[in-house]
Amino acid sequence: MSLLVIGTVAFDAIETPFGKTDKIIGGAATYISVSASYFRNKINLVSVVGEDFPQATIDMLKGKGINTDGLQIKQGEKTFFWSGKYHADMNTRDTMDTQLNVLSNFDPIIPESYQDCEYLMLGNLMPSLQQKVIKGLRNRPKLIVMDTMNFWMEVALNDLLETMKLVDVLTINDEEARLLTGEYSLVKAARKILTMGPKYLIIKKGEHGALLFHEKEVFFAPALPLEEVFDPTGAGDTFAGGFIGYITSTGDTSFENMKRAVIHGSAMASFCVEKFGLERIEGLSEGEIDERIQEFINLVQFEITLV
Amino acid sequence: MSLLVIGTVAFDAIETPFGKTDKIIGGAATYISVSASYFRNKINLVSVVGEDFPQATIDMLKGKGINTDGLQIKQGEKTFFWSGKYHADMNTRDTMDTQLNVLSNFDPIIPESYQDCEYLMLGNLMPSLQQKVIKGLRNRPKLIVMDTMNFWMEVALNDLLETMKLVDVLTINDEEARLLTGEYSLVKAARKILTMGPKYLIIKKGEHGALLFHEKEVFFAPALPLEEVFDPTGAGDTFAGGFIGYITSTGDTSFENMKRAVIHGSAMASFCVEKFGLERIEGLSEGEIDERIQEFINLVQFEITLV
Repeated sequence: MSLLVIGTVAFDAIETPFGKTDKIIGGAATYISVSASYFRNKINLVSVVGEDFPQATIDMLKGKGINTDGLQIKQGEKTFFWSGKYHADMNTRDTMDTQLNVLSNFDPIIPESYQDCEYLMLGNLMPSLQQKVIKGLRNRPKLIVMDTMNFWMEVALNDLLETMKLVDVLTINDEEARLLTGEYSLVKAARKILTMGPKYLIIKKGEHGALLFHEKEVFFAPALPLEEVFDPTGAGDTFAGGFIGYITSTGDTSFENMKRAVIHGSAMASFCVEKFGLERIEGLSEGEIDERIQEFINLVQFEITLV
Repeated sequence: MSLLVIGTVAFDAIETPFGKTDKIIGGAATYISVSASYFRNKINLVSVVGEDFPQATIDMLKGKGINTDGLQIKQGEKTFFWSGKYHADMNTRDTMDTQLNVLSNFDPIIPESYQDCEYLMLGNLMPSLQQKVIKGLRNRPKLIVMDTMNFWMEVALNDLLETMKLVDVLTINDEEARLLTGEYSLVKAARKILTMGPKYLIIKKGEHGALLFHEKEVFFAPALPLEEVFDPTGAGDTFAGGFIGYITSTGDTSFENMKRAVIHGSAMASFCVEKFGLERIEGLSEGEIDERIQEFINLVQFEITLV
């Protein structure tokens, strides 16, 4: 099964209470693609970088079966750069620097060979660009998943609302769900969002897990209790990659299978936060992933027979 | 099976963003006993009230099969009173007033008829009094569960640590686990606490659920996503009551059964927060409880078969 991923490919510089990085590889589409690649999918990447972006990383992506024909490399330009610093509780962070660079005039072009993609993951990006990708596909994918963030709710709300109407699944965090709806209760927020376009909503609560809403149904997946959260950067994207990667590999968009996909996404995210950047999720073995999934099963499964 | 419950029986005055109460019935032992009574246990209450405490409430407790022979009624004295105000997020509160009254010289006396109790629930109280109850029992109960709070960590830490050595299960919230151990990570905090006496630890995270730790095992139960949390007062005690009530009724202290007990506790707590004080949990039907348990099953259960 094939998946189209669009989003940023970037440089990040990260500071956490545990340490500090120089420029490392980041970007929503990077985390999503790498995470989704573990589910043996054909992945087609659409993004943009500058001439400063390392060929070794592009080779690493190719090595994971990620098609980079849609990754534009802009000569004479620089890659998108983001720098952030996490507070002691790791739940909040400050953006220290944002240099849009190649992103400021990014025009996502979908290679002809990508047109047969059955699944589409819209990583966090200007909503107008996410929408352009949807409209650039001749056939509507079987499932469109969209990630976004509070920033677009503040500066491009109309574009965001228009784009939301075109997607099947929206993934946002708890604060963003509240911001988008003006409802403090996540149940009320979810009910509103499910009238705005998406038929499925995933609310990510970081260390407190994730909720999947659909019609009157709700499913909850915890985050794995970890000894240390080393660096949360990319955890949400890694979650999204595991989610859509699992769905793509199974070709099953039922609610029951989405629950399994949420668990797989949560497992992938639990690896991501153990080290800086892509470090932990770049070289996972199938055995490690299965073991982690088993930990999630052990964490929440119980037997109650109601008479 | 029989359960001994000790803790406060009190008057509360509560203010939340949804409203304000006059003096209503509260107290840890009240919530625990009422919650545990739904599991058809013989419950024996040890506590103290003043002459101002309503007979109607004592009759209500008796009507639920709660033996009040150990409830001392002090003539000429007043019942313990607590008043608190919740912040907008409902996760934090300020204590507005505390009047110890009868609690200041409370000497818990265990009626002879209580001596055969197989399960003991120590509701939040001065640790020295909790310890006195343990030592006042001729036979050690099959399981001793202890609840406590940050206040005792600050003013009676040594007594608390001594009492902890005598119990099987400790229930505290996430902030208290951090305060007690100096560890931010709950996994690290739990590991430390499990060397301090209790073989089982429950960390309550309010709207974010509860974690049960034992040796290397961990189980997570979510809180039910609710449209509104109306009044969180007593939710932790109601959880504890459901937990020990379920264990008492089944007579099974295995880890597998403790998981089920945590789910039952969570279900009871999810009712408690829907109205002020005891209002919601006073008149529950068996059908309502089963339905709520089913909602928890639906919320977290998924099928993944690892090959």
